[in-house]
Amino acid sequence: MKAKIYGIGVGPGDPDLITIKAKQTLAEANLVVYPAPENGSSIAKKIAAPHFPKTCEELPVYIPMSTNRFPAMKIYKSASEKIFNAVLENKTVVILCEGDPFFYGSFMYLFGLIRKRYNVEVIPGVSSLMASAAILETPLAAGDDILTVLPAPLADDALEKQINMADAFAIIKLGRHFSRIRRLLEKLGLLENSVYIERATMKNERIVNIADVVESDVPYFSIILVHKRNKAWL
Amino acid sequence: MKAKIYGIGVGPGDPDLITIKAKQTLAEANLVVYPAPENGSSIAKKIAAPHFPKTCEELPVYIPMSTNRFPAMKIYKSASEKIFNAVLENKTVVILCEGDPFFYGSFMYLFGLIRKRYNVEVIPGVSSLMASAAILETPLAAGDDILTVLPAPLADDALEKQINMADAFAIIKLGRHFSRIRRLLEKLGLLENSVYIERATMKNERIVNIADVVESDVPYFSIILVHKRNKAWL
Repeated sequence: MKAKIYGIGVGPGDPDLITIKAKQTLAEANLVVYPAPENGSSIAKKIAAPHFPKTCEELPVYIPMSTNRFPAMKIYKSASEKIFNAVLENKTVVILCEGDPFFYGSFMYLFGLIRKRYNVEVIPGVSSLMASAAILETPLAAGDDILTVLPAPLADDALEKQINMADAFAIIKLGRHFSRIRRLLEKLGLLENSVYIERATMKNERIVNIADVVESDVPYFSIILVHKRNKAWL
Repeated sequence: MKAKIYGIGVGPGDPDLITIKAKQTLAEANLVVYPAPENGSSIAKKIAAPHFPKTCEELPVYIPMSTNRFPAMKIYKSASEKIFNAVLENKTVVILCEGDPFFYGSFMYLFGLIRKRYNVEVIPGVSSLMASAAILETPLAAGDDILTVLPAPLADDALEKQINMADAFAIIKLGRHFSRIRRLLEKLGLLENSVYIERATMKNERIVNIADVVESDVPYFSIILVHKRNKAWL
């Protein structure tokens, strides 16, 4: 059986930040699977589109933008069954993942379902965490630093406890939580150490001084990076 | 002036896990700079060697394996001066970094020196954190998980506090700290959730059951991944 299933990280946004291995894998795809919002276009597809093979089938997986992930399980189940059928037809299936597949990627739910029946080769990608650091010229962590990744939807007291104990941290999934997070950073005296970026390496990338950010403009793909020494190398 | 300075992530080990952008940048290099141990060969060079241009100068930066990074500053300063000279000669300088440049990379010290005089374009890379997760089939974190990166040289009590508060964590820089870390994970009832890998995606990659690891065999490039739910997607 030549059929294989891959989950590939397509990187943070710039199509050239895909790896050679992911690009070569994608070139062999008979079926390309990617997450898509219920309305609008798929970011993963947009990133990887320059590397699609000339002919291939496509399977968008429409992920509901609900905060509860369990309704989505039905959708992943249905997608996994379509993937199983493609394997039975001897097709090479490539599942696209924004950034890295296993760093907060919804791909893992699909992976969990498929992995019960078939091997899945996962090809890591450049994460938005590292891409944001590169564009902002802000090293994440050095030496024996403790680096914590904090999703913005967490409550202030949970975030504050983590922040107090970390040397450096990244706050992800900002969106409508932005103003609350900024107030918390100010309260903790860390606003001057904080840098902010939206959609790092995408065409519409935007670096804004954190004091000037307007919450209603903050997309899901945005990040705040903080190092308590201000610069990790100090 | 056409001279430019780049810091590029060459990825975790497999030469095909370099990005297209890093590969293209490297192809234009007149001077390639890379970290090297005082004895032995440079891992960053080995990873990127298949992508070196036909002719280029090389500048190995010999990093002392001391736990105190300050003696190294003299070495970085001397390297930065050689890089400044190359720029004056209109050369394109590419500095190689294992994994990602800003994720615990010694590159940042060189970056800090160069950045005072010249722009440096940093190209992010696939980190060993993500590569290890991919090979181990262990998603790092999902949803609103708190993910903490913990260097093994930290003391047990510091590690224990962090571990108690995290949903998922990675322990890096294991080496001679391995047995102590394993005992700590056992004490905290997390040994069954722990997976271990050495040199993910390198030719001598090795996955070992954590119970069977022999400390004297543990290299610096090894990692333990733990998720408290055992699988991030649960």
